[in-house]
Amino acid sequence: MLTRQTDRLPAIREAHEGTVAGDRNALARLLTLIEEDPASASPIVWTGSGAAHIIGITGPAGAGKSTLTGALITSLRADGGRVAVLAVDPSSSFSGGAILGDRLRMSNHVLDPDVFIRSTATRGSRGGLAASVPLAIKALDSAGFSHVLIETVGVGQSEIDIARFADTIVVVLAPGWGDGVQAIKAGLLEIADIFVMNKADLPNRAQAVAELKGLYVGVNNHADVPVIETTATTEDGVSDLRDALMDHRSLLLEHGGELLKSRRDQTAAEHVRFALRVELERRREGIMASGVFDRAIEKVADGRCDPWTTALGLIEA
Amino acid sequence: MLTRQTDRLPAIREAHEGTVAGDRNALARLLTLIEEDPASASPIVWTGSGAAHIIGITGPAGAGKSTLTGALITSLRADGGRVAVLAVDPSSSFSGGAILGDRLRMSNHVLDPDVFIRSTATRGSRGGLAASVPLAIKALDSAGFSHVLIETVGVGQSEIDIARFADTIVVVLAPGWGDGVQAIKAGLLEIADIFVMNKADLPNRAQAVAELKGLYVGVNNHADVPVIETTATTEDGVSDLRDALMDHRSLLLEHGGELLKSRRDQTAAEHVRFALRVELERRREGIMASGVFDRAIEKVADGRCDPWTTALGLIEA
Repeated sequence: MLTRQTDRLPAIREAHEGTVAGDRNALARLLTLIEEDPASASPIVWTGSGAAHIIGITGPAGAGKSTLTGALITSLRADGGRVAVLAVDPSSSFSGGAILGDRLRMSNHVLDPDVFIRSTATRGSRGGLAASVPLAIKALDSAGFSHVLIETVGVGQSEIDIARFADTIVVVLAPGWGDGVQAIKAGLLEIADIFVMNKADLPNRAQAVAELKGLYVGVNNHADVPVIETTATTEDGVSDLRDALMDHRSLLLEHGGELLKSRRDQTAAEHVRFALRVELERRREGIMASGVFDRAIEKVADGRCDPWTTALGLIEA
Repeated sequence: MLTRQTDRLPAIREAHEGTVAGDRNALARLLTLIEEDPASASPIVWTGSGAAHIIGITGPAGAGKSTLTGALITSLRADGGRVAVLAVDPSSSFSGGAILGDRLRMSNHVLDPDVFIRSTATRGSRGGLAASVPLAIKALDSAGFSHVLIETVGVGQSEIDIARFADTIVVVLAPGWGDGVQAIKAGLLEIADIFVMNKADLPNRAQAVAELKGLYVGVNNHADVPVIETTATTEDGVSDLRDALMDHRSLLLEHGGELLKSRRDQTAAEHVRFALRVELERRREGIMASGVFDRAIEKVADGRCDPWTTALGLIEA
């Protein structure tokens, strides 16, 4: 349960100052404080520099996103970039915990002082809102990284929403992943700025790329979203992805950064929508944790009251 | 957008009376009224008979749920059952509409007066809440069907929540569907009262059944959930599924219906939680549709206010 405590403000301010000054321990502390209390952190963290290139990396489980992210870090570092990664793991409704095995694939970067990796499990059993993610992106931006990579599994609306906080959205697929209807249902095709067909060493790769092109042209009504073929395990094609990211960044910065401004305006709206959702979800959880709720549902089970009248009564009270 | 209008009450009452009297046109009208205004319909519809066996049928896209549901209708009808089907289709965030092609597979029952089939697209772009589904189940129960089948694609939390309104939950899988981690992430394993391994004519069927048994024993800590093998297209194994459903129903009715009572009590709580979620979502959509929201996000985009403070202000106002 998230709680708001004004006595956390000095700690948040101190951690933020340390973060801006380049202190990694302060950044780690700040991210924890954001997870605990996004509402208090928001006014302090919102003053990010806006200088980082925010890159969302999403796609179905098993497409090789983590391996690709690891390879992309290597490529960006070779160009002198400073890279932060926020890896968002959906929780199972059963375990309540995250499946973090994939993170190990990024482990060869943990000793690099110019690479920062943070894993965040989605909170809450319903809808998997990762309440801290949008502000964590801002915090990583404040810390002076040139690239902030947000890796999410594109399994549901929440994960797709997280990708919307990015300047550039990379959708990673692999040959043999699902059929067209599933891709459309997941809503993955319409958000991509760049497609990656990973595992390009598989025999059915060409067919998968052709199928993807057919699908996204149908969905997006335009054909200019690049499809990069990579084999993340051997780093083949990863420099092409890096180039495509730079191209998209250049496009965003054309004409005095007109497109980037429009994108960031949309992101600001997305930040507010997200905070609204989290805060209303908090209220819902608060209602359900109360003794009044338990007594109310007894009346519904007994047939003394109906569910909707009960729900409206609980919201008013 | 859902709206509540007290002038709808006479129409809802009339449609409900017709429904209880066995008028199918009245039932169809009642379901539409529930979709338009669940809050007004709730007090009237909640007085269902409780006599029907409510069966949830869920599983990943492509497992053959619709074909299986069609075959199950045939089997239940042969025993003299009267069967209602509520098919819930998730909407793509792109199309906003439902992908209803699968429904055609049930079309050979549309002329049978003792079979009633209704398709409902999930409403709202976020989270796909099918606001009307829980009360529609009650309405179908009131209409005197012996079996109410609710078919949902088990792709997200909302669909899994819908399955919770059932007395008996059937999880349909097919050989080659995903890997174990995906099944766990989807939360499908822990809700099953009965597993169906459909497409049992596929060569890798035995391995898929063994893998499933290994997985669900790990998740549920017990091994007594039956796994029925079916080939829905040829109706092979469908009578085994019907028997397993009757066995589960008998189990629920043992000792004076102790288990059924406990299950329905849980369902009542689920109805209230669901109504709470829908009503808070309505409020969120109301906020976002307002001019105040547009002006507030401009301030956030300009850096004059932060997203969380803005969201809290919008909720209070």
